[in-house]
Amino acid sequence: MKYKPNLNIVLHQPEIPQNTGAIGRTCVALGAKLWLVRPLGFQLTEKALRRAGLDYWQHLEWEVVDHWDEIVSKLQTEFWFFTKKSSRSLYDANMKKGATLVFGSESSGLPDSMLCEHHGSTLQIPIRPEVRSLNLSCSVAIAGYELHRQISLS
Amino acid sequence: MKYKPNLNIVLHQPEIPQNTGAIGRTCVALGAKLWLVRPLGFQLTEKALRRAGLDYWQHLEWEVVDHWDEIVSKLQTEFWFFTKKSSRSLYDANMKKGATLVFGSESSGLPDSMLCEHHGSTLQIPIRPEVRSLNLSCSVAIAGYELHRQISLS
Repeated sequence: MKYKPNLNIVLHQPEIPQNTGAIGRTCVALGAKLWLVRPLGFQLTEKALRRAGLDYWQHLEWEVVDHWDEIVSKLQTEFWFFTKKSSRSLYDANMKKGATLVFGSESSGLPDSMLCEHHGSTLQIPIRPEVRSLNLSCSVAIAGYELHRQISLS
Repeated sequence: MKYKPNLNIVLHQPEIPQNTGAIGRTCVALGAKLWLVRPLGFQLTEKALRRAGLDYWQHLEWEVVDHWDEIVSKLQTEFWFFTKKSSRSLYDANMKKGATLVFGSESSGLPDSMLCEHHGSTLQIPIRPEVRSLNLSCSVAIAGYELHRQISLS
């Protein structure tokens, strides 16, 4: 193990390798473990990772799974699901060390079925209505560092 | 004016258009004005912006200047300079509404001369030593949203 994770970041069916690359870098910076749920919009071969500029990948604690259910069975943690459809701000949540932050794909976000099942644990990052969403790597950075800030205070 | 800015983001000589694009989107989401200091690693023509995927640019309050001095003379605000060389964490700063957050280029960060002149106002985002830095668009998102959080509390 490269490091003992402080938190977990899950990307559900990510599509754009450069975003996953930037998120991997943020995860190494934070000491977070990155989980990827298939299908992915890119390959995970060494050559493909290098071509997509996924630096720092060798320092990253990560795992890829075929189904979301595997995440639930492997991680016995607090879960938070990020969606602009949530009515609760990230800043109103009290997140704990070891928590798992879950993000959907760039084009569609998290599936409605997942949001419905976990409707008590959804959060949104406040944005002005002119933008549909933030870039995925920015959303993960904002949420991951807010959890880091909360952990540091506790 | 598209909106009255809550804060200012300055990119000093940014090099990668996709980063500036993601940062413009974050600025619209936050209600921040984006300032770009030349030289830029890309063009600002409408065609070039579209090709680089700079969505939301038409909703963005922004300005480009030839020299850093123009920023100082136009913005009579509190300034914070982001560098991994700072010994003060972002989370130890007490930032005010209307503040200006300044970020260097992807490859070299802010010039030493600028950091020296403003050494009392530098901040770093905490990162584990395995990474040299975060992606620029992630750094801006983390710092911009932390300022937003502090403003909302005050």
